[in-house]
Amino acid sequence: MRTEHASLQEGRISRSEEPLNLEMPFENVDQFITPTKSFYVRTHFPIPNIDKDKWRLSVEGEVERPLEIEYDEFLKLQRRKIPVTLECAGNNRSFLEPKVKGVQWGLGAVGTAEWTGIPLSILLERAGVKPNAREVILEGADEGELDDAKAPRGKVRFARSVPLAKARADVLLAFQMNNVDLPPEHGFPLRAIVPGWYAMASIKWLTRVIAIGRPFTGYYQTLDYAFWRNGELMPLSEMQTKAQIARPVNGETVLANSNVRVFGAAWTCDEIGRVEVSTDAGSTWEDAQLLGESKPHAWRLWQYNWHTPTRGRATLIARGTSSRGSTQPTERDSNRGTYMINHLLPVNVTIE
Amino acid sequence: MRTEHASLQEGRISRSEEPLNLEMPFENVDQFITPTKSFYVRTHFPIPNIDKDKWRLSVEGEVERPLEIEYDEFLKLQRRKIPVTLECAGNNRSFLEPKVKGVQWGLGAVGTAEWTGIPLSILLERAGVKPNAREVILEGADEGELDDAKAPRGKVRFARSVPLAKARADVLLAFQMNNVDLPPEHGFPLRAIVPGWYAMASIKWLTRVIAIGRPFTGYYQTLDYAFWRNGELMPLSEMQTKAQIARPVNGETVLANSNVRVFGAAWTCDEIGRVEVSTDAGSTWEDAQLLGESKPHAWRLWQYNWHTPTRGRATLIARGTSSRGSTQPTERDSNRGTYMINHLLPVNVTIE
Repeated sequence: MRTEHASLQEGRISRSEEPLNLEMPFENVDQFITPTKSFYVRTHFPIPNIDKDKWRLSVEGEVERPLEIEYDEFLKLQRRKIPVTLECAGNNRSFLEPKVKGVQWGLGAVGTAEWTGIPLSILLERAGVKPNAREVILEGADEGELDDAKAPRGKVRFARSVPLAKARADVLLAFQMNNVDLPPEHGFPLRAIVPGWYAMASIKWLTRVIAIGRPFTGYYQTLDYAFWRNGELMPLSEMQTKAQIARPVNGETVLANSNVRVFGAAWTCDEIGRVEVSTDAGSTWEDAQLLGESKPHAWRLWQYNWHTPTRGRATLIARGTSSRGSTQPTERDSNRGTYMINHLLPVNVTIE
Repeated sequence: MRTEHASLQEGRISRSEEPLNLEMPFENVDQFITPTKSFYVRTHFPIPNIDKDKWRLSVEGEVERPLEIEYDEFLKLQRRKIPVTLECAGNNRSFLEPKVKGVQWGLGAVGTAEWTGIPLSILLERAGVKPNAREVILEGADEGELDDAKAPRGKVRFARSVPLAKARADVLLAFQMNNVDLPPEHGFPLRAIVPGWYAMASIKWLTRVIAIGRPFTGYYQTLDYAFWRNGELMPLSEMQTKAQIARPVNGETVLANSNVRVFGAAWTCDEIGRVEVSTDAGSTWEDAQLLGESKPHAWRLWQYNWHTPTRGRATLIARGTSSRGSTQPTERDSNRGTYMINHLLPVNVTIE
């Protein structure tokens, strides 16, 4: 890890140094809001060093009145604060068999923060989106050359699109994370938050918002962060339903004939409806207790009181179901490539 | 080459056996129409063995009246015969530096045939395309598993789309090539001919025509047969302007102080306007003589009378310009990946 990054690690697991990728040890989760210093960090290129006094956000493309907005002006707009769970689309990748390319995330490329910002809809309204617009491209200042023979030549900027309806509905342009200005590694001075979607859409170091009249086919929408559905290539979008066990951890030894608290978090693209736990490798399931209040687009902490047997081994599994009724799949769907990994993951423990 | 394919080769260059890929030696070109037995063959999977009495063509998707049509019924529709040049999108690939993956075509993955068939517009009219349709997918019966970690799992059928306007304008569903039924390797019983486009769009062994309301993103439209334009992935479509020298061939020795006929063909997405020849490696250019009549979507043969000097070496180059004024580029554009290769190619000769 480079010197300038070492101070950032703060108990997080370094998955790569250049670019910087830090994972939160998922076993540390104990509250609804993830502290910023524990939050996972996913970057694709060197972290842009942006002077907020020189920074501008442009709204352009299929709009009646293209605009540029300065940081101070931006802060004067009507702000909103919402808790949103961000999960990297490649979270859990290290559990795939056979092994695949990509950052080898364990369980912790996920976290929940409170994000303060301006609804994108306000800027779109101000710019006047033309009737032919279909999508909105969000483009960051982060860029670099790609080590992929099939990639475009020269520097590529990180960019993703969202459908216009989603852009208008709830995309937030956030300047604060957990009530303080975004740190550089989380997108200072401004990042998008696309609630309910995998976090590749929540563009950091946001500098351009571009309305377009057709589906955007940039690199991170096609050759990366995409999957196959019915033989067609689709950009990744909504998070898949998932429950993860934070504690006990895989390989842990627990006390026999006692009450063990199985604890974790569960999330989906909207709200979690149910979490079940199996302590016998999936043969039988019981409901876990959902903690706190349900909030849209944020994870739900949960616990389950496990009465352990006398001794032996046990395989714990958690299984989430969304409020709309979609349940985590038991097996991996190989058409999802190296993303959207939400099949059931066992946690093996010894009882003594 | 497998036994069942050996009889097909007929003086063509075998570029691969499984799947079968045969190239026409471009130096043999001497007439406007390429004989079927000399025509290049490009396949991606084993050649489907189709019984025309069991074969059906379906027109489905965003249409008011989905239909299925039998071979005999198909032949009763109003037919048309047009000469069209087909060029593989990877023609000239063996000239790329550095070397790239893919079939190593020389100059001869191109040819012109007369195609007899039914305009696709007749079937679209009969099925009644819905107002929301934007594209038409053409799907062949050829299929197989792909040796590409990023491809969809399981069998994939070869399919491409064309915009609805193109489908209505001039796409032909051909059952004859040069006045006889299509041979199996050219798509028996029916193939699409998409005039002016690279030949990956001219789907062979056609079985399904599917209208859709959004851009099709199948494998051969995205991860293959695509290129980058302004940072966005675009499916290959129109052929790029190109003039090729058939004779003399590279490395040939020609007679000093004589008249040497430089001969070749030139093509583009519509009509060729001009062919120039340089005999001094590109320093000076003179017009070649265009032969025959200009026909839309077909190549134009050309010749140039070269008065050779006393002795030495010379580099011949041909350069085409379309009737709309687009001229072949001098250098390769690397954003085109392994396709659309139409930069200038030198032919070196010795004069004795």
